[in-house]
Amino acid sequence: MKEIAVIGFGVVGGGVVSLVDENQERIAQTAGDAVHVKYILDLRDFPDSPYADRVIHDVDTIMNDPEIALVVETMGGVHPALEFSTAALKAGKHVITSNKELVAKHGAELMRLADENGVAYLYEASVGGGIPLIRSIRTSLATDRVDAINGILNGTTNYILTRMRDGGISFDEALAEAQELGYAEKDPSADIHGFDAQRKIMILAAVATGYIADENDVYAETMSKLTTADMDAAKRLGGAVRLIGSFKREADGVSVFVCPRIVPGKNPLAHVDDVYNAASVAAALTGDVMYYGRGAGRYPTAGAVISDVAAALNGSYRTESVRTWENSPAGFVKKFADSKNRMYVRVSGASVQEVMDAAHLVFGDVAAVPGTPAGVSEFVTSLMTERQLSEGLSSLPGKVESALRILD
Amino acid sequence: MKEIAVIGFGVVGGGVVSLVDENQERIAQTAGDAVHVKYILDLRDFPDSPYADRVIHDVDTIMNDPEIALVVETMGGVHPALEFSTAALKAGKHVITSNKELVAKHGAELMRLADENGVAYLYEASVGGGIPLIRSIRTSLATDRVDAINGILNGTTNYILTRMRDGGISFDEALAEAQELGYAEKDPSADIHGFDAQRKIMILAAVATGYIADENDVYAETMSKLTTADMDAAKRLGGAVRLIGSFKREADGVSVFVCPRIVPGKNPLAHVDDVYNAASVAAALTGDVMYYGRGAGRYPTAGAVISDVAAALNGSYRTESVRTWENSPAGFVKKFADSKNRMYVRVSGASVQEVMDAAHLVFGDVAAVPGTPAGVSEFVTSLMTERQLSEGLSSLPGKVESALRILD
Repeated sequence: MKEIAVIGFGVVGGGVVSLVDENQERIAQTAGDAVHVKYILDLRDFPDSPYADRVIHDVDTIMNDPEIALVVETMGGVHPALEFSTAALKAGKHVITSNKELVAKHGAELMRLADENGVAYLYEASVGGGIPLIRSIRTSLATDRVDAINGILNGTTNYILTRMRDGGISFDEALAEAQELGYAEKDPSADIHGFDAQRKIMILAAVATGYIADENDVYAETMSKLTTADMDAAKRLGGAVRLIGSFKREADGVSVFVCPRIVPGKNPLAHVDDVYNAASVAAALTGDVMYYGRGAGRYPTAGAVISDVAAALNGSYRTESVRTWENSPAGFVKKFADSKNRMYVRVSGASVQEVMDAAHLVFGDVAAVPGTPAGVSEFVTSLMTERQLSEGLSSLPGKVESALRILD
Repeated sequence: MKEIAVIGFGVVGGGVVSLVDENQERIAQTAGDAVHVKYILDLRDFPDSPYADRVIHDVDTIMNDPEIALVVETMGGVHPALEFSTAALKAGKHVITSNKELVAKHGAELMRLADENGVAYLYEASVGGGIPLIRSIRTSLATDRVDAINGILNGTTNYILTRMRDGGISFDEALAEAQELGYAEKDPSADIHGFDAQRKIMILAAVATGYIADENDVYAETMSKLTTADMDAAKRLGGAVRLIGSFKREADGVSVFVCPRIVPGKNPLAHVDDVYNAASVAAALTGDVMYYGRGAGRYPTAGAVISDVAAALNGSYRTESVRTWENSPAGFVKKFADSKNRMYVRVSGASVQEVMDAAHLVFGDVAAVPGTPAGVSEFVTSLMTERQLSEGLSSLPGKVESALRILD
């Protein structure tokens, strides 16, 4: 019997506690031993919970109990999750987390600490909820080389984009709907401005390379300025708008960034709707592999935590690749201005002739967009650096209504 | 240094040998030790190969060499692959295979033998080429319960279906094209009649349940009778025709079968084109997870073999779930006649009035299909057993041009 503790009795933590109870046999088979939740740490009391008698308020009870082999941290945020995780690892306890912010900001030091103490620090649930993405990269693709990842990593924004396209409603209306359904939080800024996806693509890039980027080096662009006219343009281009987190190995470093993209219809990511998440992983030998599933939710996320609990307790984590990360050296992540993209551009307030003349002048060859509505000009640039794109945009006549990168 | 042998120097075996050479460092890191191919067993000689000096013709050289820790079997077919695999396992050597026919027919006994001898018998490459599907189910989803799998498991037939739809060409034309491109073999019967997909869904169902079905209990229907009229009907129903291998846990047993299906557009499998493979896995906690990638090809398949080589040598296979299969007891796989499906039906040679009257009489409520062309009648049944469907079809007036199950 292995005793474990759960820190943070919210949606995911609560899911973990009930899953451990309800799936005894299957977990014991995989973990190699029965698992039992001895403590639940939370600031609150839960007098009506069937687990009320396990709820404690003093973290030291966990840290000082040699019976506790593993701590599940599902509290979120950096503090005190960092301090609690550090203490648990130093006490020789495995730590399993769903806390993407902590993993993105302090994963490197926590993994090193875990390694020094001969225990695991695992984080499958921090990206893509129930999608078994991280373990798959660290085991099945460990003998391959991951060269690129493009992911729909945030379900809230994907729901908003799906509703804007299918319902013809504005961003504000779709956001309000997502909030009513509980898909978006009252303060949705981490989702809609791309910060959540930013942390997740940082984590995936680290799983692929062993280096975790500095948040300040990872460009993230809000999707809150998108309009139904953008959805329509994407449809006319045969695709759909998606908020994409991208990682790519290039000759002069890696590119890691998040922004709304027009995804062509031939890319399976264009067909990932509603709150689903997906990640397309390009590996040198295996080619493109796509993973698709529920990116959030109590049971998918708790299920991912449990799979990490089993990997820690049965020792298989020791054979997974990229067991520790290094903080990325300066210049490892390319400056976003040096990234190359193709861009869809829509301009109003100037004649089509004026706009297209200027576009040819500043961007060279540009492609027409089928079915351009009256009153605006549209075109798609060829591949060029963000610096060139942004200089080009600023020298167009009229008003740039939209400038969306295309996922190639 | 771990010495290994490769049996069968064809497309996949050749890929394995060159990958082991070219990816020394990454493989050593994951496998825990450097890996070297000492012998290549084949009937032929390869005087021009850089590996000519390792080619041998006597299997006993491998079996009697205590240095050989692992054998890769990429020869295909049951004999002598079964005898060679048996001998290797008895000699305490791990066996890694890409041979789906052998795994489907003799996997249970080979896994038991491996277990008795404290070694691995692994088969990731037998299904879905480079898609890391089997290991993901056996690790990440091991603490969950897989309730259903629907897969596009054969790239050749998916290419044919894509070309029939997009090119408006007949089955025969699309098959000829696939043969020219090397996607289909001269004798394509294993692909087009569903036998290849049948073996693969049997293997996946066994990974999910621990029981391998008897081939005779697994219904497989050819896709060679499909027409462009079927592609058109699927499009009018908002979907696409795909050859689907299905596994489902039901109250009275499991259903396992292969047949062409109309896949609705909201299902991501409808958007898997060309030679790509995909499998949608429904797990109790995690929900639907889809895996998508190259189902065949030298490097994807060889890459999957190498990931198994690493799992065998680093010992992590010991923590994977469903390490051995049992042969399924009688009645474990439900009779296909008792499976329930909805069906699209197209009838010619009788008036629409006659056909629809009869359809209502024998099938009860049926749904209309948008845009039915002149000269035929079309409808979609509600959910009913295959027995009811087949009785109903035989009592319709006119000629049943097509009867395609719908994937719900």
